[in-house]
Amino acid sequence: MTYGLAMRMNDGLVFLSDTRTNAGVDNVSTYRKLHVFRPAPDRLFVLQSAGNLATTQEVLDRLTIDLEISGDHESLASVAHLFEAALYVGRLSQRVTTEHRDALQHVSVDGTATFILGGQIANAPPDILLVYPEGNYIRASDERPFLQIGETKYGKFLLDFVGTRDVDLVTATKIGLGSMMSTARANLSVGPPYDAAVYRTGSYDLDEYRFTTDSVILKELSDVWERHLVSLVNELPHVALSELRDAEQREP
Amino acid sequence: MTYGLAMRMNDGLVFLSDTRTNAGVDNVSTYRKLHVFRPAPDRLFVLQSAGNLATTQEVLDRLTIDLEISGDHESLASVAHLFEAALYVGRLSQRVTTEHRDALQHVSVDGTATFILGGQIANAPPDILLVYPEGNYIRASDERPFLQIGETKYGKFLLDFVGTRDVDLVTATKIGLGSMMSTARANLSVGPPYDAAVYRTGSYDLDEYRFTTDSVILKELSDVWERHLVSLVNELPHVALSELRDAEQREP
Repeated sequence: MTYGLAMRMNDGLVFLSDTRTNAGVDNVSTYRKLHVFRPAPDRLFVLQSAGNLATTQEVLDRLTIDLEISGDHESLASVAHLFEAALYVGRLSQRVTTEHRDALQHVSVDGTATFILGGQIANAPPDILLVYPEGNYIRASDERPFLQIGETKYGKFLLDFVGTRDVDLVTATKIGLGSMMSTARANLSVGPPYDAAVYRTGSYDLDEYRFTTDSVILKELSDVWERHLVSLVNELPHVALSELRDAEQREP
Repeated sequence: MTYGLAMRMNDGLVFLSDTRTNAGVDNVSTYRKLHVFRPAPDRLFVLQSAGNLATTQEVLDRLTIDLEISGDHESLASVAHLFEAALYVGRLSQRVTTEHRDALQHVSVDGTATFILGGQIANAPPDILLVYPEGNYIRASDERPFLQIGETKYGKFLLDFVGTRDVDLVTATKIGLGSMMSTARANLSVGPPYDAAVYRTGSYDLDEYRFTTDSVILKELSDVWERHLVSLVNELPHVALSELRDAEQREP
């Protein structure tokens, strides 16, 4: 599996992906699942992937080759809006999946992939979109300004907490890392190194980071997280079992 | 869906189940999913269910009728060990599922159910076992003394934290409620009232509670939880984005 998440804040966008892939438990490997495209000075795209690794790699190769060959075909350089870029990625994904579907069905392998596409084109506001295996897309809402792909459940509680868009980009990155670490702790198929990318609105440039297992910052975040869970449990309101019974409606 | 969890501590057992069932989003209802059997003075069973509601109800009816009718057939009164009780529940579950499988397949409905069976028989130590839809079972390990059924992922981080068996039963109950509330917050298919049952080793009796939406204790737990997440985010180690870049290996 995999875990990828993107957040759309007032100041810009934050992307986080783990790097673990597994084909069975005895074939675990590390692959980058956060990719950057800068096809022109006034446009930047981040593409995060989850799902079949072969499918995502072929989609990335096709995105790249479409930018390299000249002509008036569709590419990340030609699309006018982010939603068109999402539909374009969705069509490539559908085409790759369809090509290999019969062969993969013979061995009961799911060849589909899910993507998060984020970035900015010219003066339109930056945005993040989730591209489904079926090729359609959704964007993050203002009420819930984040998107997740892959193993989305374990780390959701921390993102639920972000809630608003007015968290600064560094804090959002750290909250994202907390969500990532909680997921990795619960599920072996998600693990470091973690790739992070932070996009400041209007910059058309990206700050990229890789957090490895021996990262000082990861260690500090993990310590704070652990310390707070300990004090949370210690501070839980005291009730004796008998009080609990008296206080609550008891079923016969 | 549903969320049920059981914990095996040094002092006894803790069980928690939500009560929400849904057949589509427009058919949401409340059903008890934590059931107690006391077939003799020296044996007590708690059965928690997740999955197809009709299947779980028929299994419960068959368990009950097997206790009521006389004869030398298998029942919760006749089994000598908890693992035999688990296998017996598994066989009933398999029988019910098989009877209805063809009809349910016509409408693409999954008729399977998963159970947690816990309790104590005579002087054997109390235990909790998870009964799979296939009729086999596992017990909780000493390293991870809890079992979960249903929507298990959202609330796992808090249980990972319990870790050891030496937490007292009241604290374990509160940690379980925290796990339950985190799940309900993330997933509409899980919700209050929550049923809790606490079993003290050797008592052959159970303390049962129902936490409703207006529960004072739930409100207090939720406040502590929220306060700690706020201070956790505030206390995250400060790093400027530039420091972040300097401190971490940057990918080209």
